[in-house]
Amino acid sequence: MYNAITDVRGVWVGYCTKISGSGKLRVGVGPVRTGVTVIMPHEGNVFEEKLAVGHFVLNGNGEMTGFVRDRETGTLETPIFLTGTANVGIVYDAALTYLIQQNPNIGISESVPVPVVAECWDAMGDTEGRHITEQDVLDAIKTASGGPVAEGAVGGGTGMRSYGFKAGIGTSSRILPEERGGYTVGVLVNANHGSRHLLRIDGVPVGEELLDYSEKRESGKSKSIIMVAATDAPMLPVQLQRLCKRLALGLARTGSVSTHGSGDIFISFSTGNRITKNSKEFLCVDDSMVSRLWEAAVESAEEAVLNALTSAPTMEGKDRRIYEGIPLDRLVSLMQKYKRL
Amino acid sequence: MYNAITDVRGVWVGYCTKISGSGKLRVGVGPVRTGVTVIMPHEGNVFEEKLAVGHFVLNGNGEMTGFVRDRETGTLETPIFLTGTANVGIVYDAALTYLIQQNPNIGISESVPVPVVAECWDAMGDTEGRHITEQDVLDAIKTASGGPVAEGAVGGGTGMRSYGFKAGIGTSSRILPEERGGYTVGVLVNANHGSRHLLRIDGVPVGEELLDYSEKRESGKSKSIIMVAATDAPMLPVQLQRLCKRLALGLARTGSVSTHGSGDIFISFSTGNRITKNSKEFLCVDDSMVSRLWEAAVESAEEAVLNALTSAPTMEGKDRRIYEGIPLDRLVSLMQKYKRL
Amino acid sequence: MYNAITDVRGVWVGYCTKISGSGKLRVGVGPVRTGVTVIMPHEGNVFEEKLAVGHFVLNGNGEMTGFVRDRETGTLETPIFLTGTANVGIVYDAALTYLIQQNPNIGISESVPVPVVAECWDAMGDTEGRHITEQDVLDAIKTASGGPVAEGAVGGGTGMRSYGFKAGIGTSSRILPEERGGYTVGVLVNANHGSRHLLRIDGVPVGEELLDYSEKRESGKSKSIIMVAATDAPMLPVQLQRLCKRLALGLARTGSVSTHGSGDIFISFSTGNRITKNSKEFLCVDDSMVSRLWEAAVESAEEAVLNALTSAPTMEGKDRRIYEGIPLDRLVSLMQKYKRL
Amino acid sequence: MYNAITDVRGVWVGYCTKISGSGKLRVGVGPVRTGVTVIMPHEGNVFEEKLAVGHFVLNGNGEMTGFVRDRETGTLETPIFLTGTANVGIVYDAALTYLIQQNPNIGISESVPVPVVAECWDAMGDTEGRHITEQDVLDAIKTASGGPVAEGAVGGGTGMRSYGFKAGIGTSSRILPEERGGYTVGVLVNANHGSRHLLRIDGVPVGEELLDYSEKRESGKSKSIIMVAATDAPMLPVQLQRLCKRLALGLARTGSVSTHGSGDIFISFSTGNRITKNSKEFLCVDDSMVSRLWEAAVESAEEAVLNALTSAPTMEGKDRRIYEGIPLDRLVSLMQKYKRL
Repeated sequence: MYNAITDVRGVWVGYCTKISGSGKLRVGVGPVRTGVTVIMPHEGNVFEEKLAVGHFVLNGNGEMTGFVRDRETGTLETPIFLTGTANVGIVYDAALTYLIQQNPNIGISESVPVPVVAECWDAMGDTEGRHITEQDVLDAIKTASGGPVAEGAVGGGTGMRSYGFKAGIGTSSRILPEERGGYTVGVLVNANHGSRHLLRIDGVPVGEELLDYSEKRESGKSKSIIMVAATDAPMLPVQLQRLCKRLALGLARTGSVSTHGSGDIFISFSTGNRITKNSKEFLCVDDSMVSRLWEAAVESAEEAVLNALTSAPTMEGKDRRIYEGIPLDRLVSLMQKYKRL
Repeated sequence: MYNAITDVRGVWVGYCTKISGSGKLRVGVGPVRTGVTVIMPHEGNVFEEKLAVGHFVLNGNGEMTGFVRDRETGTLETPIFLTGTANVGIVYDAALTYLIQQNPNIGISESVPVPVVAECWDAMGDTEGRHITEQDVLDAIKTASGGPVAEGAVGGGTGMRSYGFKAGIGTSSRILPEERGGYTVGVLVNANHGSRHLLRIDGVPVGEELLDYSEKRESGKSKSIIMVAATDAPMLPVQLQRLCKRLALGLARTGSVSTHGSGDIFISFSTGNRITKNSKEFLCVDDSMVSRLWEAAVESAEEAVLNALTSAPTMEGKDRRIYEGIPLDRLVSLMQKYKRL
Repeated sequence: MYNAITDVRGVWVGYCTKISGSGKLRVGVGPVRTGVTVIMPHEGNVFEEKLAVGHFVLNGNGEMTGFVRDRETGTLETPIFLTGTANVGIVYDAALTYLIQQNPNIGISESVPVPVVAECWDAMGDTEGRHITEQDVLDAIKTASGGPVAEGAVGGGTGMRSYGFKAGIGTSSRILPEERGGYTVGVLVNANHGSRHLLRIDGVPVGEELLDYSEKRESGKSKSIIMVAATDAPMLPVQLQRLCKRLALGLARTGSVSTHGSGDIFISFSTGNRITKNSKEFLCVDDSMVSRLWEAAVESAEEAVLNALTSAPTMEGKDRRIYEGIPLDRLVSLMQKYKRL
Repeated sequence: MYNAITDVRGVWVGYCTKISGSGKLRVGVGPVRTGVTVIMPHEGNVFEEKLAVGHFVLNGNGEMTGFVRDRETGTLETPIFLTGTANVGIVYDAALTYLIQQNPNIGISESVPVPVVAECWDAMGDTEGRHITEQDVLDAIKTASGGPVAEGAVGGGTGMRSYGFKAGIGTSSRILPEERGGYTVGVLVNANHGSRHLLRIDGVPVGEELLDYSEKRESGKSKSIIMVAATDAPMLPVQLQRLCKRLALGLARTGSVSTHGSGDIFISFSTGNRITKNSKEFLCVDDSMVSRLWEAAVESAEEAVLNALTSAPTMEGKDRRIYEGIPLDRLVSLMQKYKRL
């Protein structure tokens, strides 16, 4: 297994990274530090075979399109796209292009096609310039596959930073023992949230210890984290809503207090039921089983955030600002100091 | 006064209507029956001076972007755009262009810019062709003004039908007597919902009576109604959430049962407080006053739906299909028969 | 069939009515005009075999205990009790006595026992005196049965009035044709809401026409309506939440604007799945079917309110006040005048 | 100051502890290990002068009465009572007695009196026996005062255990620096939640280290934590809803994953506005200020849980079972081992 959301069978991840230019910000020109990540909920046509879905909004100062539709029906019917704030309209429109191509009869369906596009403010580059194109989105979809998932400054995570360090995409998974059902829970995050002093890793106050590391030039305050969880445990929408709240508990372990400007919006889906127009039956885990899944979700969420941080090396952004990656050598020392290694 | 949402001082409405071509549907070519309507919540910069906002989702099988952000903060910070389903991405992106132009410092704000774009499925024309452009949206904004509001097949309502008749934009308002505060409640709807047999007008079973009028060729089932309410009564977000539920009660008086495929999503805002970064005080009506405002909201919502129906004459759509307007002469006869005139 | 919630097989209704004394109000003595109604969701042990449940709060200025628990789990595990506001604690405690007797192992369950008790303000009698006892509640449970349901001033509806007339319990049902699944939707309400001028019956403005009928001495303003819907259509919790919103649409047809002081709280459950600790599967209707169920729910809700009004004759309350029943002869004349009869 | 919820001026805490008997459980007799805690939101008549309120349900498998009413209006109008699950009805009824005595005109108010009573399953004693009486509740109210707050096995916390140790009531507070407004945030919890292996204290894996300490005889699984936050920062209901979510983040730092059977229900109120029938104005902190309040809330919540644990010594319960308090000496050693002391 890959310690990734793709450990849930059928879940694929693709992305397109756009990095070009350097130096002073010129809106519409660059530097470009952006991208788009796509999570394909299963390898088939998700508009025709929908999945159960749930959400939790920890702090909703951001956007995840499709929220209203998916909340109403309890189903997910499109891939999930992660990108920079200013790209939402473009990605939404490109996703629609993809959905219409895939589903020529979309117009006579009972469902309207509402793509799920979630954003964080990727202020390292020329975010207002909106450098993502329809083709970039279609390309990201084409790259989607199972297996190992690239982490850090890739795809929708390209221009992100978290806890005062370079960050981006992170993923992790947990597999329950067979006697607990053998289910897998995988989490993928786009981490762009948090102030440095709050960062904790496995309980160690890393943020406080590294408070004076490099300079902490943090410009924009609109920090956010999008968390996506997948599981092959069959679950009802009401159960997935509950699972999503556990992502917040995992996030909390890394120190976040979820500040006002943050779009901390979580979505989870289950591959355990394929829902068609005529579905008359739902499988679900019984409630005596869910607490183990909650624990798996908390742990996966926590580790996905940490993986986002530790996978993103230092990067230069607009106006030649340096966005430092977390110093791995000092991190090792700190974990030793606090008896974790 | 104009019996319109613009009776709430400062609320402006603009629109851009796109009608061209006829005959057989050719995706990407036409016929074009679409548009965009914009509601400017006040005449200033709403991103800098936000308004209190509330929502209610009666049946969320549709999209209103910005829902998560506005629900979290209780504030509205962009105009509200109404358009066809397939135009959401384009309108969202165009709205961002407008917001960035208007607010050059948007990137360092505490708030991310999340435009409010709400859709109904305008299947009368080449909806998949997505004929709205960024310029159309900017044009709609430029036309915004107070005063009388065009109703029927204009702007975002161009390609809509409701209760088996041609429909689109409708608006209405109520003004409370001075001793009740003298407040105004205005509602504007984009009506694209309902089956004919359900239609009731002032309690008269008009739909049943007109069941065999013309042919009822209803293609797509993804029927929706977006309702927008404005008031100058100062209200807290929690009060506006309550007001929004009353829009559903007004809708119900016209017969709707809010079917599965419908995106019946409601938003309301109050011009009674301008909220800036440093706002430390909110005016609000006391709760002993709100029931009169609820009654005004129910009545305005009911009448706005009826105005959408009675303002939209017969129109030809794709494949030469005729979308009949409600026959006003027969409507008068029916109202007389049932002792309403 | 009985045009009652009991038309849903297995749903039983019981009640205990407490009427005694007359004349001037003496708190703790009388006059007593109160009671309790109980809805048994199925004929078995509902704590062991739970049902899927949904809610909608149209205006929450009241109480329905169990809301938080049932919303979280999507299950109903106790009977539903309807009573006067001041009796909630007593009825809750008595319900617990019943649950503990029925389930000796309750303490080691995964679930805490949270009875569902919903109230309206029965101000016709000595409501503060709290004349309901534990035994009354246990008696109500014992009387529960299928078949015809007593309406009007009985059980929890004893001291209620609605739209300025005597009211109380009302019930109704709709059965879908076999080709639509043959499902039954039943609604039972405790009606204590609304101002007279708003009342509409089948679209006829009865309230306005009867505005001067008798005197309209309305004391307390804390008006409410509790609506309970049952169906044998198998549904997920998320579907039942949607069904509950349609009860509001039915209520709206009778004229309500849901005033500030009102506790308009709705609950619905499905007998289509019996959920035990080890349930791993849910039946549900497919979404293409639900709109017909919504229509049935709207109609049942509307008629249940009207049945509550037309089943409750004039009653004398505290301080010798007369609470007029709606005059049936005048109602017939009005329906004729407006061409409904 | 007292590092307690009472550091918020005007907030008072009272309680009644019922401990008697020992040995084998005899339902209705004993042993008795229960009680009730009351939080008076301000020193006046809270039914006449209401406070803004917010909620968050992390896992709602429990009860907090008043939730629906308070959520609807955004106001708190009664004291908050914490007790054992089986006492809810009795405490609710007793609270009503108190409210009626205090407010003779309650029946003609716009508001119905819905007391806030929240429960956890106090299975250490004869919980089914329901040993709390109306007088106990009135006594608890009478003892309410500001100043230091008793923690551990007192009042509503008497029969509680958490993370496999004896627990109960805990409280803590944070005061913002003057330049941040000088506001106080106080939290009081009734802790009855969590499995031992999960417990973390300031990031140290205390639960794992103490996994084999004593025996871990955990009977009932219905574990819960009620969290109550108060602040003198003036806040809107929508802001208090947000604050409540931060209590979950504080709880997460102690290791909880919020299991299925848990009633993890949170409520917060602000003393910064006294709301009467005729209130037309609300003070609130501006949103640029709230993140500091969130941080204070997270910290207070975390510490309140830890204070509940460290204030509750070993107690014998029913059937002579020993409920171990957390061993403070070993805790000190562990904190030293992990470089926290």
